[in-house]
Order: sequence, then structure tokens, then C-alpha cells
Amino acid sequence: MIDMSALPRTVELERAEDGSARFTYIDERKLPESLEFCHTSSWRNVVCAIQELAVRGAPAIGAAGAAALALWACNEGAVDAALCDGDNARRFQERLRVVATEISQARPTAVNLAWGVRRTADAACAELARSDNAQLAAKAAFDQVKAIEAEDEAANRAIGRNGARLLPHNARILTHCNAGSLATVFYGTALGVVYAAAEQGKVARVYADETRPVGQGARLTAWELARAGVPVTLICDNMAASLMAQAQIDAVVVGADRIAANGDTANKIGTYGVAVLAHHHGIPFYVAAPAATFDLSLASGAQIPIEERAASEVVAPLAGVDVWNPAFDVTPAHLITGIITEHGVFAPDHVAQARALR
Amino acid sequence: MIDMSALPRTVELERAEDGSARFTYIDERKLPESLEFCHTSSWRNVVCAIQELAVRGAPAIGAAGAAALALWACNEGAVDAALCDGDNARRFQERLRVVATEISQARPTAVNLAWGVRRTADAACAELARSDNAQLAAKAAFDQVKAIEAEDEAANRAIGRNGARLLPHNARILTHCNAGSLATVFYGTALGVVYAAAEQGKVARVYADETRPVGQGARLTAWELARAGVPVTLICDNMAASLMAQAQIDAVVVGADRIAANGDTANKIGTYGVAVLAHHHGIPFYVAAPAATFDLSLASGAQIPIEERAASEVVAPLAGVDVWNPAFDVTPAHLITGIITEHGVFAPDHVAQARALR
Repeated sequence: MIDMSALPRTVELERAEDGSARFTYIDERKLPESLEFCHTSSWRNVVCAIQELAVRGAPAIGAAGAAALALWACNEGAVDAALCDGDNARRFQERLRVVATEISQARPTAVNLAWGVRRTADAACAELARSDNAQLAAKAAFDQVKAIEAEDEAANRAIGRNGARLLPHNARILTHCNAGSLATVFYGTALGVVYAAAEQGKVARVYADETRPVGQGARLTAWELARAGVPVTLICDNMAASLMAQAQIDAVVVGADRIAANGDTANKIGTYGVAVLAHHHGIPFYVAAPAATFDLSLASGAQIPIEERAASEVVAPLAGVDVWNPAFDVTPAHLITGIITEHGVFAPDHVAQARALR
Repeated sequence: MIDMSALPRTVELERAEDGSARFTYIDERKLPESLEFCHTSSWRNVVCAIQELAVRGAPAIGAAGAAALALWACNEGAVDAALCDGDNARRFQERLRVVATEISQARPTAVNLAWGVRRTADAACAELARSDNAQLAAKAAFDQVKAIEAEDEAANRAIGRNGARLLPHNARILTHCNAGSLATVFYGTALGVVYAAAEQGKVARVYADETRPVGQGARLTAWELARAGVPVTLICDNMAASLMAQAQIDAVVVGADRIAANGDTANKIGTYGVAVLAHHHGIPFYVAAPAATFDLSLASGAQIPIEERAASEVVAPLAGVDVWNPAFDVTPAHLITGIITEHGVFAPDHVAQARALR
């Protein structure tokens, strides 16, 4: 039987009685060798943690970015006399917006980051407009982050329920990267579907792509599935096609970093190739993501910015050898069987019309 | 300009005046950090070098397996009185066949290994039948290995000429694993095509899949192309699809470990997935291999044995996580645009009829 209580929460914001806030996150660079929780009261540390992939996964960085802004509000903005006293509240708001922008730019592809920061900034500004009180605005930012955390877990559980219905009994599922509990506040999106199906006894096995160069599949997906008690087999990215050819895969389920209005989906590099392979073998390909991952302001995936990262992530420098290291790719809507959200399962070409996703 | 003289010979057998033989090979596990030549007079050491991937690549292990048998003949068989004296020559032959079988089983997938060993054994046995002299039989085995070495380089240069004609000007070529000079005695098969085209100024860039789990692309293909002066960009295996989608690839050229009568081709794990991706994007997919790589005794690729290797090649053991680590896959003939050999370029469905490949 699977045991979700074996999995830790990935990110969590707390607030002391004096109004100061503290953020706790798992340093995922240390997994699977060791499970380490880091604590910080500095918003800049959270930005670094996001940039260096200590915290990663679109929903998790959405919550972490929101928490970073709340850390600024609680620990810096609300205690700085120059920002808070009297009619200086306007300065608090100006500075809040500057910090929010800086946090939002920590990584470019996942839309959840800007979404989480904007929600938190808007909550603080609304309170400021109401009360003209920086301490109350900081509290509003904190409360908003806690709402984001709670909504994330609830959305993931709903995604799991909605996705589990799509899977056959004794399902053998291929996933790429980590869209698991470790990519969210708790429970996961693509792996949320796995956990919900496993709780119904429907999962025979998950095949996890190792997901080079950072190895989120090998290090994170394999770790959390094994810890929760789901049978998992690790493969190199280039082995997925062989499994499909041998009829060992019933469905592919992956997460998303940004979904455009036409259903085109940006996700970890390699997702697009898996989608082409699934299409070739007649295997359903599902994207699992919360509403916060949709960016209906973009007409298509061509407009999604793709982060390119350092060559050193791939290999030690070798004279005369160039390296190309994009962190994401875009899977066109026509290769996606369905997008599993907390509001139901959508055909990619119905995304733009879906009110629930606005 | 490219400079082929910058590349070393991968394997080489030598014979002293006293009739003893010595085998020299590059320990490719040490590349790209250091270029180390190993010398041995023991056939068992060569078997280990093949099993542990110090020597790898179908044509190279064909030559190395042949050399291993010649080492036995020159250094053990021909100096063992119990095998050679008088009517004991029959025992030399029996023992030769036993050693040949053991060498042939060092790795299962590449047919070149058994081919090289059999050619060398047959040459020794023919000489033994003629002269009843173990020393002369050992010399015949040595001469056969030198012929295999010379033919391999000549075949590769012919493969290069035949393949270069298929490429457009300013070609951007994707390759998987290492079918380069380091996979052969010298010059390479898939990279033989690249070198021949580069000598004609036709190659804009080679994209090298890193080829997990052993990293032959990252460690070997990138190293030898850079050393020869061919522009090369290293990518993770899961990035190839994105390059194709961005119209950055004009052709895929890979090597082969065994080609069945219907054109189905076994090659390094991941080749099949690249072939599917090339097909989806309308990009020509070529296999480059000498006649020695064909196994017309097999009707289809389903009969090719696929080696599975240790989980530890993929990842450090992690409690509760299984690993699947096949070393090869089979690309069905219908995904292959052409098979480039020293005798010309064949459509996969013309392999069975080709006299030159028998």
C-alpha cells in the first residue's frame, strides 16, 4: 500500500508572534542522498534557492516566490521606518513592487512564479489601500501565501482524482522529470495522478526518465515514489522509446511549466520528444497542471520564453566542444491527449474557452 | 580544416621476431580526461577490456576479438609443447576453438565480434590443415588480424565516400553514441561519413547525443570530432527532438552493432527513439556500417540478442528503485532511409538480396 505520510512538505512559510516570517524548504539538490530542510528569513536566499534549483517545479516555485515576497514584507518592509511611518506607506508599496519584479525574474519559463508573486503583492497592496498600515499589509501577504499553499495541495488532490479516472487498471505509466510532491507544496501534479491511482490500487509500475542533465527523475521522482511505496523503475531518457515499442507503457503523464491558450505546453526539456514517441506508438499523453500554470495571454507556445542554462550542467568543459542546454521545450497541443486540471480534464483546443482556467 | 592525423589508431596488433604478439588499445574509459594506450600479450585481458568497455564499438571489438585469438595462438598455443608437438596439432585446434568461443561471448549484440574471431580461427585452422605446424598457424592468425585491421580502415573510408554524397552542403548532422574512429580501427563509420564530408567542406556542425548511461557521445564523439577539427555541439539525449523541431538537423547518421536480413538494425540504446523522431520531422536517417556488421542469418531484428547491463551504470543504488539498462535497441527497417556500406548505399529492404553483403 502507498503511504503519503512518508512524504514531507516541500515548502512552508511560518510566522512568529512578533510578525517575523520564516520559510522552510527541502534543498532538493541534496536528494536522494539526504533529506535536508533549510530555513531562511531572507527573501534573497529564496531567490537563490529558486535559481540554483534547490527549490524547483512550477507549483513549488510559485509558492516559494510568493513566500519570498512575504518574507520581504514581514521581515524588511514592515520593520523599516523609512518605508512604514506615516505617509511613507506609498514607499512600502513602491519597494514591494520592485522586490516582486526581482523575485518574478528568478527563472523565466514557469508562469506560476510570476502568478504567485503577483497574487501576494496584490493582497498586500489591497490591505495597504484599506488600512495604510505596513504591518497589516505584511500580514495580508503572509495570509495569501498560506492560501496559495493550501490551494496547491487541494488542487493537486483534485488533479489526482481527475487523472486517476483516465488510467486503466494495472497501469504502467511513464513520466518525465519530477512533477511530484517535490515539485509542489505537497502531493504533486503528474505524480498526484499516480498517487491517486495508486490509492485505488490501479498502478502496476511507474517508469521514470532520469531527465538529464539535472536528473530530476533519477534523484527526485524515483526517491519520492519509492518512499511512498509505488513500484518504480528508473530508465535513461533514451530508453523510453524501447519500452513503448515493447508495449510496456499504457500512458504518459507529465507536468507543465506554462500552458498557452492553444494548449501548447512548456515543460522540462525532453517532454516534447516523449510526446512524439507516445504519438508514434498510439499511447495517450497527458499533461497534469493546476490552473495557475495556464497563461492565456499567450496565443501559442512559440511565445513562451525558454530558459537556457549553463553548459557545466551537462558536462565538464572540453576544449573545442560546444554545449546546448535548454531547460525546457514546448509540446504542441496536437500531441497532447488531455490536460488534467483541478477543474477537470480539458482537450488542448478547449483551453482558450475554459472559464475555469481564467 | 579537419586534421585526421590528430586521431590515434584505436587498436593495433604487433608481432615480434620471436613470434610473440602484443596488442595495443586505447582505454576509452579514460577519455576525454586522458588518452591512454594499454599494451597486453594476454587474450584474457582483451576479453576483459571488451566486457568493461575499455574497447567498444562493433568494428573495434571485431578487430580486438580477432587480436585476442591471435594473442592466444602466438603467445600460448604455439609455445605449448602439449598442444604443438607431433600429432598434438589436433589439440591446438581444439583449444583454439574453445578460446574462440569464449572470446566471442564477451558481449552478445555486435555480430562483428564473432565475425572477427571466426575469420581468424578459420585462417589458423586452414594453415594447420596445410602445414600441421602450430607456429605457422599462429602466424596465419596474426596475418588475418592485420588484414582485418587494414580492411576496416579501407571499408570506413569507402563508407565515408559513399555517405558524404548523401549530405547537403553546410550539413548539420545529428549522431548518437560513438560510431567514430574510436569505435573502429581507424576513421569510423557514421563519423567516417562526417569526416569524408568535412574533408569536402560540407559539414556545418555535428550535434552529438551524450548517450546515457555510458556517455559515449559526450566522452568519445565530442572528443574525437573536436580533436579532428569538426564543429561539434554536445546535447543531452532528450534535447534532440527540440533541435529537429527547430529545423536544425539535416540528417541523422548512426552506426550499427548488427543488421538483420530485413534491414532491422541493432545499435546503441536510444537509436530507435532518434529514428522515430527523425521520421516524425521528415529528416533522413542513415545507418553507416561495414559488411561485417550484417547478419543475414537473422530474418529480422527480433532475433538479435540485446545485452542488458548493470543498474550501477545508470545510477547509484537507491532503496526501492529498480533500474532497466538495455545497452541496445532495434530500429525497424521502415524508419531507415539508407544503409551506407563500403559497397554502396542500400535501401533496408534490399539488404537480403545484396550479394556484396554476404
